[in-house]
Amino acid sequence: MKTSARNHFAGEVSGIKSGAVNDEVTLKVGDATLVAIVTQDSTKALGLATGSKAFALIKASSVIVMVDADPAKISARNVLTGTVKAVKAGAVNTEVTITAGKLEIAAIITNESATRLGLAAGKPASAVVKASSVIIAVD
Amino acid sequence: MKTSARNHFAGEVSGIKSGAVNDEVTLKVGDATLVAIVTQDSTKALGLATGSKAFALIKASSVIVMVDADPAKISARNVLTGTVKAVKAGAVNTEVTITAGKLEIAAIITNESATRLGLAAGKPASAVVKASSVIIAVD
Amino acid sequence: MKTSARNHFAGEVSGIKSGAVNDEVTLKVGDATLVAIVTQDSTKALGLATGSKAFALIKASSVIVMVDADPAKISARNVLTGTVKAVKAGAVNTEVTITAGKLEIAAIITNESATRLGLAAGKPASAVVKASSVIIAVD
Repeated sequence: MKTSARNHFAGEVSGIKSGAVNDEVTLKVGDATLVAIVTQDSTKALGLATGSKAFALIKASSVIVMVDADPAKISARNVLTGTVKAVKAGAVNTEVTITAGKLEIAAIITNESATRLGLAAGKPASAVVKASSVIIAVD
Repeated sequence: MKTSARNHFAGEVSGIKSGAVNDEVTLKVGDATLVAIVTQDSTKALGLATGSKAFALIKASSVIVMVDADPAKISARNVLTGTVKAVKAGAVNTEVTITAGKLEIAAIITNESATRLGLAAGKPASAVVKASSVIIAVD
Repeated sequence: MKTSARNHFAGEVSGIKSGAVNDEVTLKVGDATLVAIVTQDSTKALGLATGSKAFALIKASSVIVMVDADPAKISARNVLTGTVKAVKAGAVNTEVTITAGKLEIAAIITNESATRLGLAAGKPASAVVKASSVIIAVD
């Protein structure tokens, strides 16, 4: 199963919190922890349980880039802080790659935002992703 | 009501599962079934019930493209499998159109992903969409 | 905390509806009301309560543009109606800026949609955003 999602992280389920419709699935990915909101039917269909091996898939367009991000001040559950690796501008959108620990994450943002944030290789930045934008997959 | 959402599918509500905040709405669209997560207030405001006519709206940028997708292995509830109809590359992003049965679905992915997946007209591929990315509309 | 999210609205929490996993947070932003779905853990971590100052962050790529939008006919909870301020086309995507009352909101849509909707500066249009695409931040 190959996917267009630019961000594909292998990890292990470290917790599941169930609601009536949606579940919150926490995935340990190396030193990082990622949180996904998926439907309960998906949790069951995938057979997810604490300790399950699973992948988090995140589209580059779902990633927000922040400078000086403070996870305590933002509702998005996934904040990966590191360093800008590359910035590639198109006519409207820019692709930004951030290295955070052992993870590398790609984001698509507008050119205007890339300029406004002064993003450049080597500068500190965070990749921020809402839990509802994370897809869980299994092998 | 005309919308920029590239994907606009007419169907009929085949099920509603209610939570405290969110509802899961299932829509029968021809031979396909689409699942949307909307707030309960929306379900009520739209007067949705089993048998209601409704539309699913999906932004092209919310669609992930997969090759060899196995719906049993991914949390995303909407997997439309078919054939690539067209691939149109920009500077950063590529627009991919997939024909799946009677449905045609457009996706915006990065150029790098399009190249990595080897997408080209006539090749098999799936369009994958999280239920939380689907908007429901009525006439 | 600077962010790539093109849309950044300061407001005040006017309501919180709690589920088991997700909360629905309503934010008063000038004359407009924005609705966000965030995890309950976020509501707690941010200390959100009625009257709290907070920001709504919305990525341009999460915004759908509509013409003749009728909020009563769409599940997306956020519909900001106003006038197109600017349209900037790239190779694949177009950036559309809409002025709605005192708010200005940027959207990234495909060129094909921009053409199909006949978007141009001065024309009426609405920016439509699912509650699950809205991030809440605090100072």
